[in-house]
Amino acid sequence: MTQATSTRYDPATYEPLTFHDAARRFRTGDDTPRDYLERCLATIDEREPVVQAFAHLNREPARAAADASTARWAAGEPRSPIDGMPVGIKDLLETKDMPTEYGCEAFRGNFPRRDNAAVWALRQAGAVILGKTITAELGGAHPGPTTNPFDPRRSPGGSSSGSAAGVAAHMFPAALGTQVGGSIIRPAGYCGNVALKPTQGGINRGERQVTSMSTHGVHAGCIEDMWQVAIEIARRAGGDRGARGLEGPSTTPEPVRPERLIVLETQGWAELHDASKGGFAAVLDQLRGLGVELLNRRHDPFVESLEGAIGNAREVCNAITGWENRWATRNLVDQQPDGVSERAKEVLDAAEAMTVDDYRALLFARDVAQEAHAALAGSADAVITLSCPGPAHVWLGDEPGVPLAPRPTGDPVFNFPSSMLFAPAVSMPLMSVGGMPVGVQIFGQQHDDAAMTSIARWLLGAVTPVVVD
Amino acid sequence: MTQATSTRYDPATYEPLTFHDAARRFRTGDDTPRDYLERCLATIDEREPVVQAFAHLNREPARAAADASTARWAAGEPRSPIDGMPVGIKDLLETKDMPTEYGCEAFRGNFPRRDNAAVWALRQAGAVILGKTITAELGGAHPGPTTNPFDPRRSPGGSSSGSAAGVAAHMFPAALGTQVGGSIIRPAGYCGNVALKPTQGGINRGERQVTSMSTHGVHAGCIEDMWQVAIEIARRAGGDRGARGLEGPSTTPEPVRPERLIVLETQGWAELHDASKGGFAAVLDQLRGLGVELLNRRHDPFVESLEGAIGNAREVCNAITGWENRWATRNLVDQQPDGVSERAKEVLDAAEAMTVDDYRALLFARDVAQEAHAALAGSADAVITLSCPGPAHVWLGDEPGVPLAPRPTGDPVFNFPSSMLFAPAVSMPLMSVGGMPVGVQIFGQQHDDAAMTSIARWLLGAVTPVVVD
Repeated sequence: MTQATSTRYDPATYEPLTFHDAARRFRTGDDTPRDYLERCLATIDEREPVVQAFAHLNREPARAAADASTARWAAGEPRSPIDGMPVGIKDLLETKDMPTEYGCEAFRGNFPRRDNAAVWALRQAGAVILGKTITAELGGAHPGPTTNPFDPRRSPGGSSSGSAAGVAAHMFPAALGTQVGGSIIRPAGYCGNVALKPTQGGINRGERQVTSMSTHGVHAGCIEDMWQVAIEIARRAGGDRGARGLEGPSTTPEPVRPERLIVLETQGWAELHDASKGGFAAVLDQLRGLGVELLNRRHDPFVESLEGAIGNAREVCNAITGWENRWATRNLVDQQPDGVSERAKEVLDAAEAMTVDDYRALLFARDVAQEAHAALAGSADAVITLSCPGPAHVWLGDEPGVPLAPRPTGDPVFNFPSSMLFAPAVSMPLMSVGGMPVGVQIFGQQHDDAAMTSIARWLLGAVTPVVVD
Repeated sequence: MTQATSTRYDPATYEPLTFHDAARRFRTGDDTPRDYLERCLATIDEREPVVQAFAHLNREPARAAADASTARWAAGEPRSPIDGMPVGIKDLLETKDMPTEYGCEAFRGNFPRRDNAAVWALRQAGAVILGKTITAELGGAHPGPTTNPFDPRRSPGGSSSGSAAGVAAHMFPAALGTQVGGSIIRPAGYCGNVALKPTQGGINRGERQVTSMSTHGVHAGCIEDMWQVAIEIARRAGGDRGARGLEGPSTTPEPVRPERLIVLETQGWAELHDASKGGFAAVLDQLRGLGVELLNRRHDPFVESLEGAIGNAREVCNAITGWENRWATRNLVDQQPDGVSERAKEVLDAAEAMTVDDYRALLFARDVAQEAHAALAGSADAVITLSCPGPAHVWLGDEPGVPLAPRPTGDPVFNFPSSMLFAPAVSMPLMSVGGMPVGVQIFGQQHDDAAMTSIARWLLGAVTPVVVD
């Protein structure tokens, strides 16, 4: 199979799969949702054997949904701008017509026949629910089989592995992912996606509301599709319980040049590859050239204060989520000890060693970090940093007898800050390092999702992606 | 059966079933958890045919747990002050050794073999998980078979029907309930229980965190058992995700006389029976005689402002919860149209007529009410009002051909305010009206759970329950 060989990612020539432009042709009859879907299915037939993005592909129901959409467009009555869009759904979200297996052996064959609120909203908007995409086990660290579309020896990132890889491989123009630590922005960065991790609570998680830091988000080939999917869901299903949910214009916000950005190093700086560091510096140089003022920890004591407040974001985020998941995981391990990975059991062990006072202290640290971030609201339009610590690494699987690699889907170190801060983050494919994508992200104050989308849209237009060998 | 006849509730002679005093005798060997359990089981054998508190009774596993507890007490190593306490669990919470049927035909036989976080914590504390108690369907309005222990023609209240009735009938000294509108405090008021509805998020709801206003809480025969159960859970499982959870002393807080209480009328005043209004006035007279200053809407413009902010609490609470439950209910109705009551379907219809902007407006109204309440923090020690609009009503079941009675488990009108305000509330059996219990509640600022318990403990000691014929 030719797909098994590496395809260097060249941002100058790589064309993402997009939908919003095709939808214009649906209106004129030059294209149809069914034809669009068939092109996706052809790509899937070609690439799925190597990429392995799908936990379940719903080929015939998708065709039926695309036909219904085709009829609506022909009648001039699409339900929304994403009517007919094929969408991948991360296999942590329930879908009434497909199994939901959480990438976990213990849930093999689990088929609750329910729609997650966001999936329900997508169907209401006319989207074609194409399949369930591979997730790292239970949204954690233990990887599924998905490979990086630009090099099958490399990880696509996780835990939204199949959503990110499927978008990059042109299998679908958009997909739902979820992030509790770094599970949307990191795989987007590794796969050259545009992606939105909304403000905490921005998109209704439906049945999945047991953790305090997880969000549904959107992977897409372009920012127009990213925003449109997010806002169509939020307009129908709103946000999490008790949250106003994502708000903003009904079509993609216009590009806005930021006056000033905060450059955050985060815990990840020490682990950043030199090549990626150089590429990021080149992106920042372009921004300076475009008249954007940049603040950083060396020149601004408030930025240094924020860096300090998120300096242990990894530990805080992992422990908070571990505690919140401990009862569900304990029940699962008790029921099916062989159905859960050793990696997940290690996380459970750490969580069960915590006390409620440990958890309260972590919530306090998170509150303090959020206060530090909020205090910077007037100082800059957004934060800019990397989406991942360099290009995706080679991952060929666990080796028997060798201690478990701690992060087989890559290091979320650059992602914990926006998760901890409940901040809306957008990843942009602005770099190529060694022939692989490396994302750059911006994130902003809570509820500034539309503003982040505007800035990202400007950056995507104004910055020439940087190529580093 | 003699139990099928009415037993007038006389607070002067009614002795609740308590545990904390028995536990003292476990230490000396004068009593044992197994013997305590056997007394409960004998009461259950006698009264369950009429009261019908149980969805599932776990007789033999409870005996095994009580024997293990007996051994721990004999060895001088109880796990906690509630080691050996038989506890009823409302059948909305998952239990690994019993089915969880939510009082809903569609879930008949549902047996997920998982422990809710609070149930897990109770087991860790050594409590004996005695059985699942009847809940109104899905925690809503459609009643189960439970009858009021003081008059089997009357409702025990809902949705925590079996928990409240079982405590009143001496089947167990404490039980878990849940409240989203009025499901803890109202049945406690109808059944003569003491009960705590904690600050929103105070007790970890485990898998049940999809709604923003539901709390786990405790029904008990006395305030010592009420607090001890709550704090033992919170010390082990904490609060909901993102919440600090219930905090306070490791044993029941000492009684504290309030300096000043706010008397709230709420939406319920207009519907309050004259006899109950008179009884409540007599309680307030006693308080004045004991030197407690009372504020009300006629003399204090800030109280009037709070009354205004909660003036539509019923509509706000019902609509918020309806929206939050709509996806789960829609999935259920789609799967099993005949497995869900018409009452639940009416709630779903109303929720599906809402838009996300409707929901946002309701959240805003709730926020405003919480601000109005918080602004009164310095003005008084607590709010005092009734737990229910008079004694439990006669309920003999739906009649074919007659429109569905809207509130067969009674009117939660006095309970919506503390739910809407996320306020800790304690119900106390301070009145008897027509031979039936009528509860009086206090509620306070968020996180003042221990202070409310102190005030309630003082009230229970200082106020002579009022008897009105």
